[in-house]
Amino acid sequence: MSTLRSALLQRAYGSDTEANITGNLAAIRQAAGQGAALVVLSELHDTPYFCQIEDPALCRLAQPLPGPASERYASAAREAGIVLVCSFFERRAAGLYHNTAVVFEKDGSLAGRYRKMHIPDDPAYYEKFYFTPGDLGFHAIPTSVGRLGILVCWDQWYPEAARLMALDGADLLIYPTAIGWEPSDELSEKQRQLDAWVTVQRGHAIANGLPVLSVNRVGFEPSPSGRGGIQFWGNSFATGPQGECLCQAPDDKESTLLVELDAHRTENVRRIWPFLRDRRIDAYSDLTRRYRDPA
Amino acid sequence: MSTLRSALLQRAYGSDTEANITGNLAAIRQAAGQGAALVVLSELHDTPYFCQIEDPALCRLAQPLPGPASERYASAAREAGIVLVCSFFERRAAGLYHNTAVVFEKDGSLAGRYRKMHIPDDPAYYEKFYFTPGDLGFHAIPTSVGRLGILVCWDQWYPEAARLMALDGADLLIYPTAIGWEPSDELSEKQRQLDAWVTVQRGHAIANGLPVLSVNRVGFEPSPSGRGGIQFWGNSFATGPQGECLCQAPDDKESTLLVELDAHRTENVRRIWPFLRDRRIDAYSDLTRRYRDPA
Repeated sequence: MSTLRSALLQRAYGSDTEANITGNLAAIRQAAGQGAALVVLSELHDTPYFCQIEDPALCRLAQPLPGPASERYASAAREAGIVLVCSFFERRAAGLYHNTAVVFEKDGSLAGRYRKMHIPDDPAYYEKFYFTPGDLGFHAIPTSVGRLGILVCWDQWYPEAARLMALDGADLLIYPTAIGWEPSDELSEKQRQLDAWVTVQRGHAIANGLPVLSVNRVGFEPSPSGRGGIQFWGNSFATGPQGECLCQAPDDKESTLLVELDAHRTENVRRIWPFLRDRRIDAYSDLTRRYRDPA
Repeated sequence: MSTLRSALLQRAYGSDTEANITGNLAAIRQAAGQGAALVVLSELHDTPYFCQIEDPALCRLAQPLPGPASERYASAAREAGIVLVCSFFERRAAGLYHNTAVVFEKDGSLAGRYRKMHIPDDPAYYEKFYFTPGDLGFHAIPTSVGRLGILVCWDQWYPEAARLMALDGADLLIYPTAIGWEPSDELSEKQRQLDAWVTVQRGHAIANGLPVLSVNRVGFEPSPSGRGGIQFWGNSFATGPQGECLCQAPDDKESTLLVELDAHRTENVRRIWPFLRDRRIDAYSDLTRRYRDPA
């Protein structure tokens, strides 16, 4: 391939799981009809973002992988003839759940999975309650459209994750995500948060010479606690390997972004900025330490 | 301290070393007069950027540290009562040179040094010819205004370097640098390069919850080869610990940026975004590998 047409599906999700899935499948078909060869959904796209509260009963939303829910997406990938990146609440065993991205090949087969490694725990994002930290490490998933470096949401703040995917031969970085504003925050704080979210991911593109696709959900989801909620900020975007912005969705609307990724750009950008050549691997060992505590 | 007033000295340098030094010392005094407690010069600030060609004779520009040149800056720090970040071409032995940042305390004593770890080698930036890669590792330098995570130019593209400084307790990241445009490049390419340079450093601020000071030189320096030269792009800047831009210099003028850094912002930003808490140090060991080669 010389260019890869990719689709980023920024959607809003409600409490009706079947409606969420049906809408996703329709958006996948539509993107394929527009020539996309790679389609990416946002994080946990079958349900509202349920981690706003800690409730053991919500574990009923978890699904085995493969399982009935994932099979519908596998079929969609096969029927549309596209590579599809999904994100599920994976039930591995009773009391053992993961936040898992799954890649389906264009024949519907499972290309690979990635279990979210960095798990947040902030007010309204109580993910440590639900998700066991991933135990599959950072490995790019080989597909017919390239090696996909799939990372999920909170991972996006970690340069280590992006770098390990680059070292594993990833051709692009993909971040399904679910992030939004606390509505009571000041506008200036909201702007700083959104800007930081975009900037740190553009930084991963630059430091690794890789395109980045970041797909967020959109819309307000009230908290089941009855107080407040999250205004998911959309702004799904794609960059090239110099961090150059290729497209960006609005903060308040569902949107399918179609973007052409130039497979030769990484090669050319890494020739002028050969950062991988000069890494000081002899001096990086303390990256595996929590902190260098004062003596 | 609750705020730290810092000065970034973006200057242009010519072939008259004495004039360069005299001008630097005057700018340091002026910044101190404006209340700066920390003053940062750009990379290799006593000479033109001599690495545009490979010429063994240029090694005459290297200086012992401490030595006559550094002593003048030590005196300036003492007289002005400021912490001063300098950058020298260090002569360690015959045929053994480094690109070395030096920090002077406000009493003129040597607070510490950092030898540039990542060394570039691009057309017109033939640094591997002149500079032995640093052998002091990544260590924040303790001073009376905080622990300074000093890194130099090409280091700015490496998230590993910024992270190691954060793990070493740095209170801020400081990048003396010398980077510019190839005048014959297209305007769009120039814009992408400048934007990437700012963005990747803002990314380090965000990922580590630290302010960043980046100080570049400005002005056109012709190549001693007689063909072409570098248009140093200025744009020295400071960000807070969310990557928010606090100030930025123009691309075509000498400029002293004065900026107030809020010492409490890092504490507060890291409480809402506690990235250090969730690093997967159990899964980072391959960061010390060059690449994960295909089996």
